[in-house]
Amino acid sequence: MRIITDIAEMQAAADEARLTGKRVGVVPTMGYLHEGHLNLLRTAREHARFVVLTAFVNPAQFAPNEDFEKYPRDFERDRALAEKAGTDVIFFPSREEMYPNGCETFVEVSHLSQVLEGEFRPTHFRGVTTIVAKLFNCTKPHVALFGQKDAQQAAMIRRMVKDLNFDIEIIVGPIVREADGLAMSSRNVYLSPGERKDALVLSQALHLAKDLISRGEKDTSAIRSAMFLLIAGKPTAAIDYVACVNPETFQTVKALHSGEPVLFLLAVRIGKTRLIDNEIIEVG
Amino acid sequence: MRIITDIAEMQAAADEARLTGKRVGVVPTMGYLHEGHLNLLRTAREHARFVVLTAFVNPAQFAPNEDFEKYPRDFERDRALAEKAGTDVIFFPSREEMYPNGCETFVEVSHLSQVLEGEFRPTHFRGVTTIVAKLFNCTKPHVALFGQKDAQQAAMIRRMVKDLNFDIEIIVGPIVREADGLAMSSRNVYLSPGERKDALVLSQALHLAKDLISRGEKDTSAIRSAMFLLIAGKPTAAIDYVACVNPETFQTVKALHSGEPVLFLLAVRIGKTRLIDNEIIEVG
Repeated sequence: MRIITDIAEMQAAADEARLTGKRVGVVPTMGYLHEGHLNLLRTAREHARFVVLTAFVNPAQFAPNEDFEKYPRDFERDRALAEKAGTDVIFFPSREEMYPNGCETFVEVSHLSQVLEGEFRPTHFRGVTTIVAKLFNCTKPHVALFGQKDAQQAAMIRRMVKDLNFDIEIIVGPIVREADGLAMSSRNVYLSPGERKDALVLSQALHLAKDLISRGEKDTSAIRSAMFLLIAGKPTAAIDYVACVNPETFQTVKALHSGEPVLFLLAVRIGKTRLIDNEIIEVG
Repeated sequence: MRIITDIAEMQAAADEARLTGKRVGVVPTMGYLHEGHLNLLRTAREHARFVVLTAFVNPAQFAPNEDFEKYPRDFERDRALAEKAGTDVIFFPSREEMYPNGCETFVEVSHLSQVLEGEFRPTHFRGVTTIVAKLFNCTKPHVALFGQKDAQQAAMIRRMVKDLNFDIEIIVGPIVREADGLAMSSRNVYLSPGERKDALVLSQALHLAKDLISRGEKDTSAIRSAMFLLIAGKPTAAIDYVACVNPETFQTVKALHSGEPVLFLLAVRIGKTRLIDNEIIEVG
């Protein structure tokens, strides 16, 4: 496994892989890998002969009041895990390599970047789509893999790829959960033992939604109210949003219709840690 | 020479050229070719074994009150001229092919897109950088060529390529002029015979600037005033701007310094036709 920190060297390695007929797959991450990332790396291996993991904590997607500085980093751990998962290259550039002259050029998806996460983190998605476009140009993949955990990000990247004609197949891997249901996230390390217990309320709320729907509830306001109440029962929890949207367009869904899948999403602060979770629910 | 109208087919043709070791060169245009474009095609041929001309009148870079509908188009003429200049492929997509679902994703360069042309055409450059990013992803070039006639566009594309890490060499070809000095432009066909004469005042104003500088003038306000006066003398002329800037950053230059080249730019409406011209002037 090669570690590459230089953009030109990464581009040359991708060119060489392509010229020798290898399909190139990339898994863009901010490092501090968990089972969700490793699952994406293994899936990448099924779709590509040359698998690149990018590990870059991207300052442009953090607001000044957010956790850029304290975001967990452990490159040696990531290196060992990535190698075991069958990675060919870790692209691990410095901040100076990625933004040598600041950032004047932005890629932005209008509607999708403004709602839900976009309301609470107004410059976040602009930072995400910009860095992903940059990483695509650095790693020149045939296929790129993202996690469903960041559902809005995945939808936005699909839209960006379509709109800007990137010749890249996008695969979205499922949310990987701890045994008790908590969605895996690099940010889970921030949780105290008490908060770790309260954090279960996110997946429990999604479970409740599924349960209500299976019992015939069609009104999403009623479902969201029930989820709200459940979450509000936890003393450390503060809700940013609980939403039900069309999984592609992210337009709000008010009434459920049989055969039309919907996406429930939530963002909840547990103490000082902001967690998100979501589930696509089939309506029977 | 192949005519390709389909994005996937264009991408496959570029992939095939690359896989057979050919350097790919692209000249993005809105068609209605003139000698400036043909000169870029011939230069492309010196740098690439596989030369693609893109001909697409991009609606996203025209404001509603601008000349999108009447912009001159003549594909058969373009086809003959491009073939003679040694083009391998004309990529000639429809509006529906390039924007099948409208345009939600934009690429924008902050400072450079706001000044000069950006003040008079606020959404123009966003449309330009977005379509150029799209065309890069459709044609996958090693090298792309643009004309110095659109100096601000060229500077912006250089910046976009650097910021987004497109692995593409940018070459900017010189302004090609008619025998009497008028910069070639597809829009020159709009000019009536009387306007055609008045339009000479753009290159004459640049000539005046060069002359004043060679005679030792260092104050750009004085130079711009003289240019203004000259242009204002033409009855059909209305000035949008006359500017002197750093050729890379487009920051305004007030005092000239020996050895520091500056860029003089102007935009003048001659009757209903908006013309631009510019010149990089070495300060002796």
